[in-house]
Amino acid sequence: MRRIIPLLLTFVTFTASAQMLGFSKDSAANERALESQFDSKINRDNLAAWSKRLSARPHHIGAPYDADNAEFLLSLYKSWGYDAHIETFDVLFPTPKTRVVEMTAPAKYTLKLEEPALPEDATSNQKSEQLPTYNAYSIDGDVTGDLVYVNYGVPADYDELAKNGVDVKGKIVIARYGGSWRGIKPKVAAEHGAVGCIIYSDPKDDGYYLGDVYPKGAFRNEWGAQRGSVLDMPTYPGDPLTPGVGATADAKRLDRKDAQTLTKIPVLPISYGDALPLLRALGGNVVPPSWRGALPVTYHFGPGPARVHMNLQFDWKMVTIRDVIAKLAGTDRADEWIVRGNHHDAWVNGAEDPISGQVAMLESARAIGELAKSGWKPRRTLIFCSWDGEEEGLLGSTEWVETHSDELKQHAAVYINTDTNSRGFLESAGSHTLERFVTQVARDVDDPETHVSVLDRLRARDLVNAHDADSRKELRDRELIRLSALGSGSDYTPFLQHDGIASMNIGFGGEGEGGSYHSIYDSYDHFTRFIDPGFVYGETMAKTTGRMMLRLADADVLPFEVTTLAKTVERYAKELVQLADSMRADREELNRQVRENTTALASDPTEHEAAPVAKPAVPFVEFAPLHNAVSRLLKSAEAVDRAVASAPASKQAEIDHALMHLESVLTRSEGLPLRPWFKHQIYAPGYYTGYGVKTLPGVREAIEQEKWQDANDQIAILAKVLDNYSNALDRAAAAAR
Amino acid sequence: MRRIIPLLLTFVTFTASAQMLGFSKDSAANERALESQFDSKINRDNLAAWSKRLSARPHHIGAPYDADNAEFLLSLYKSWGYDAHIETFDVLFPTPKTRVVEMTAPAKYTLKLEEPALPEDATSNQKSEQLPTYNAYSIDGDVTGDLVYVNYGVPADYDELAKNGVDVKGKIVIARYGGSWRGIKPKVAAEHGAVGCIIYSDPKDDGYYLGDVYPKGAFRNEWGAQRGSVLDMPTYPGDPLTPGVGATADAKRLDRKDAQTLTKIPVLPISYGDALPLLRALGGNVVPPSWRGALPVTYHFGPGPARVHMNLQFDWKMVTIRDVIAKLAGTDRADEWIVRGNHHDAWVNGAEDPISGQVAMLESARAIGELAKSGWKPRRTLIFCSWDGEEEGLLGSTEWVETHSDELKQHAAVYINTDTNSRGFLESAGSHTLERFVTQVARDVDDPETHVSVLDRLRARDLVNAHDADSRKELRDRELIRLSALGSGSDYTPFLQHDGIASMNIGFGGEGEGGSYHSIYDSYDHFTRFIDPGFVYGETMAKTTGRMMLRLADADVLPFEVTTLAKTVERYAKELVQLADSMRADREELNRQVRENTTALASDPTEHEAAPVAKPAVPFVEFAPLHNAVSRLLKSAEAVDRAVASAPASKQAEIDHALMHLESVLTRSEGLPLRPWFKHQIYAPGYYTGYGVKTLPGVREAIEQEKWQDANDQIAILAKVLDNYSNALDRAAAAAR
Repeated sequence: MRRIIPLLLTFVTFTASAQMLGFSKDSAANERALESQFDSKINRDNLAAWSKRLSARPHHIGAPYDADNAEFLLSLYKSWGYDAHIETFDVLFPTPKTRVVEMTAPAKYTLKLEEPALPEDATSNQKSEQLPTYNAYSIDGDVTGDLVYVNYGVPADYDELAKNGVDVKGKIVIARYGGSWRGIKPKVAAEHGAVGCIIYSDPKDDGYYLGDVYPKGAFRNEWGAQRGSVLDMPTYPGDPLTPGVGATADAKRLDRKDAQTLTKIPVLPISYGDALPLLRALGGNVVPPSWRGALPVTYHFGPGPARVHMNLQFDWKMVTIRDVIAKLAGTDRADEWIVRGNHHDAWVNGAEDPISGQVAMLESARAIGELAKSGWKPRRTLIFCSWDGEEEGLLGSTEWVETHSDELKQHAAVYINTDTNSRGFLESAGSHTLERFVTQVARDVDDPETHVSVLDRLRARDLVNAHDADSRKELRDRELIRLSALGSGSDYTPFLQHDGIASMNIGFGGEGEGGSYHSIYDSYDHFTRFIDPGFVYGETMAKTTGRMMLRLADADVLPFEVTTLAKTVERYAKELVQLADSMRADREELNRQVRENTTALASDPTEHEAAPVAKPAVPFVEFAPLHNAVSRLLKSAEAVDRAVASAPASKQAEIDHALMHLESVLTRSEGLPLRPWFKHQIYAPGYYTGYGVKTLPGVREAIEQEKWQDANDQIAILAKVLDNYSNALDRAAAAAR
Repeated sequence: MRRIIPLLLTFVTFTASAQMLGFSKDSAANERALESQFDSKINRDNLAAWSKRLSARPHHIGAPYDADNAEFLLSLYKSWGYDAHIETFDVLFPTPKTRVVEMTAPAKYTLKLEEPALPEDATSNQKSEQLPTYNAYSIDGDVTGDLVYVNYGVPADYDELAKNGVDVKGKIVIARYGGSWRGIKPKVAAEHGAVGCIIYSDPKDDGYYLGDVYPKGAFRNEWGAQRGSVLDMPTYPGDPLTPGVGATADAKRLDRKDAQTLTKIPVLPISYGDALPLLRALGGNVVPPSWRGALPVTYHFGPGPARVHMNLQFDWKMVTIRDVIAKLAGTDRADEWIVRGNHHDAWVNGAEDPISGQVAMLESARAIGELAKSGWKPRRTLIFCSWDGEEEGLLGSTEWVETHSDELKQHAAVYINTDTNSRGFLESAGSHTLERFVTQVARDVDDPETHVSVLDRLRARDLVNAHDADSRKELRDRELIRLSALGSGSDYTPFLQHDGIASMNIGFGGEGEGGSYHSIYDSYDHFTRFIDPGFVYGETMAKTTGRMMLRLADADVLPFEVTTLAKTVERYAKELVQLADSMRADREELNRQVRENTTALASDPTEHEAAPVAKPAVPFVEFAPLHNAVSRLLKSAEAVDRAVASAPASKQAEIDHALMHLESVLTRSEGLPLRPWFKHQIYAPGYYTGYGVKTLPGVREAIEQEKWQDANDQIAILAKVLDNYSNALDRAAAAAR
């Protein structure tokens, strides 16, 4: 390690500011003392020991070691003074009985579908306990077809295929990981008539292109494959048989054939070692540059001459999953809950995913438990949740939230999620009412590599990465971190998007090296060599999220800032106008080029590309109701923030009550079009991105999909939701006066 | 081939305009009739037959078949009625005696350095006549050192190496082809202290990443390597022993040790098959994404553990080169010469480079000869030149121009160059006084694939490729093609940049597929399968450049438009201001980030990157003299164009005389800083790009290299040159009145 240059005096630091949202000056001083006591209790040796323990054997749902881990976690929470229990659900969980993929023409090749044990990785040889490489919730299927390469397999890729005259109907597609959440690939492939789907890890995105491969380096090796769920989570997450309700023992269950979220075609992940012979055997046009990976072949579309047979059969069994729930009761605000979660199940050993986040959460819970034993008590109730079944589709969190929806809507103020953790920079996403809160916490946590605050380090990275002077100016002028909006991909989804509870997702990353994701190589050996040696950032994560819990527990008033949300919504609304405008301009240009024959003249006649056809013009969308609602929102938000800041102590409990229910006003019981489970009207995972967020999703997806009447209708709905929110803000402001 | 959709009536076509710069309405009608007669004489079967004949055997300089081809060309020109002769020069031409490259650690690998013969390629087995793969004008050397990967080996790449703590002093560098002309790589490597240089073709830039490899497809295969000259042509092209003077038998020659343009270190090109073991064996940091090629390895900087020994010894012999010069005397303007050239020598068989261009030139010369036999005579004298020795460093053209400089400066009005030709779109570059002329010719030639004019097809391609609405608007509003500015890379350089003769370089391309460049696979078989099957675009090239010759031969007044040049110079001057401004802003930002420690905080401490250091501020440059000169130029240019257009017939000979010498006023006898051979003050190859042009080079390179006093001095010099030019314009305008 090189020496770190100490901070120069001229560095503009935000650490100097002592403000703490939700706290009076005196309470802030007390809180600061408490947090400093908390920091002193964090011990990274605990993280190392628990990581080794929890990742010692494969612990996917249904595995003996998954249950064993749950019991171990329960015993830890109890030993620290928490009121803890295990809550179980029974969920559908298919595991493979038959996995055959073979190329039958132009040459014969039977895929290995196997990650080899490595002497350098102590747990990689636990073959009898490991789940094989597969995609959970693929349907059974025995199919044969010519192969087509579809790049990332997202909708735009099928436009490119059509342009090249390639139809996937009756074919098997091979898509590379990346560009979308994996479950989108078989979904879109099936929509286009494919009969099977193979997903492989291209070394460009996940292999030697990025760095040396395991075990020499950290990255995915020739035979590593990415397991993962392909449940249609953008429709609804959780157990596919119990949408909207908890998968308790006595729950009413769908028949499996009626479950909407299983795939429509069989799908299997493979390694790039297995993909190479298939891709090498493809013919047809050469794909465009953005489709090319890093395998030493010329990438072609197909179809064929490569012909593939795949036979996948699963054991569609029910298994029991185990959420570990640990409570520390609050004092005068006990009916306000601060919920914290990280899953404990893994695809295999999962030292990074999820144990790195789990052990940081555990250490913060332990330290908070110690504080509680030594006299301090949280004003609000703290609940720590070690979820099971996240990997298969947020099963543990979704079923728990669905089971406890009524209580949660009444009591839950904030949910803080973490998942994997790595070395580097703070990554934060969530409800924008929490943007100032997150910024202030980041200001108060030290970065272990540079010894400035994690906020200052993050700002430095963003400045260095900013690509123009305008972005740098914005970064320098803006006091706050920009929280990313939450799509999906971890356990915050049921809290935020189903129940409308203000939520955050927190992690560190950007410097750890990884290619072990969802493989047998996500091990203690790999993690401690490449991801976070010494659990240095695990400690930082424990300090960051622990501090969040303490601050949320003890604040005079819940630290929400509504103006930030209002300005963010204004920004999203502007994006939508720009989106429609640029689609309109692009469409006009396309139609002009079709009319004037430009594209045909510019194209190479030997390449047999389909000539583009004119498409319907993009109409002007009725944005006025949205602009009016945003305009009102901005005023109401400023008024409520001002009122809360100057409210007398006697009003604080009432203010809290108003604030904690605000996020739910952004939901709508009917949910989003085509997916009623998703209630939130500001944030949702994209229907065709899977994890990637769509903000103002009802309107945005209508525009993207060119459903113009829907766009106008959704604007009216969204404007109504925002007006309701402004009404709620006005009531809260009145209560605070 | 798919059917071509016929042009829709609404397509905005420029073909309608009948204007012809330099011609009255009546002379334009006559010219049009002549050109149509010319078109009817073009027969693509001739191109095929000559291509087969000329590429039948290897014909590099010094090879028997090179001399044989020259005699054959001479006989053709003579048979068509030209006054033709062969002009010889004696030049230094090293060929390899010893080529050994081997990796000595961490494993032993001896490079093959050999392109295999292929049954699918009839001439690839002519082993005894082929030059081996090598870089001409590499010095002798027997060196050993640790290997360092330097990306394209341009100056900016060495900044990245420094950032990663890598010094090439005493090392052997391996650079990939691309990013600059090849000769820059050993030049910059030597400036940084390297002792040897290997250049390889990465499959990302030139191999399977782009398409199927030969013989299945067109692209460079595993063992294909790119021969080529590494003579320091940005200093001076031509025979290294006779800078500035013709290499005639009695010329005074430098001693070889005093020749400035030989490399300082030994350099050899290799295939990616040979590069793979070397790159795989490199250690050190992983290179940034823009440095990564398409080989199936993780690309590292080194240095070592790969250690390389290279021993290169050359036979430094003198050989005779043969330019074939064919003249068709003009009538009333016989003392004004229109010169046309394309080289005939190749690295091996050279069906594409240069025979594709050579045979198109021949066919236009034949058709013009037929016109002359049937009664028509050119007003101006036409000279066709089949150059020898282009590949080694523009030897044939440079020595000829140096020998005939006085006559050329007196008589040459325009030089039209071509080199390789392929399928696709018109590519034109040259003196901006010729922009309208080129546009009008392009308007009048049919594209064989779409049956619109090559101008309309080019516009369609540019519109489709334009990345924003502003670029599309400019394309639609602007009547003219934008000629690229000429740097170097073919035989126009001595005409334009040494003697100040208005020049053009013309070709078709963009659709032919190639990976045969400078290899034994640049054959008739490869060319007719992949580059221009049926010589369809060879015919179009013959029609395009033949039409240029005819129009230049017969115009009432030479078709120069000075306003276009003036506006182009104005644009270049604005670029320079923007360049200095953006360098200043970038420098301020860099120094601020150094001062505030931003970069250090943002970087990964485990990567051991050197912390950036503050650099001198970028001062304001004294641009005023340039702005004043440009301002005057714009007025003088408009005045002269107006005066010429309305001049009486009686003045036309005098006007021609003024116009044909204008370009030379843009030169300066002292030449450019560090390279007096390059006289032109508007266009030059970049000192550190090699082929790539630098416009307003004296000023631009001073700014780029942060030589601020030089920048101010060069602005004064350039302003003076432009003022002289304006004076010349004013005199021409007066003469025309």
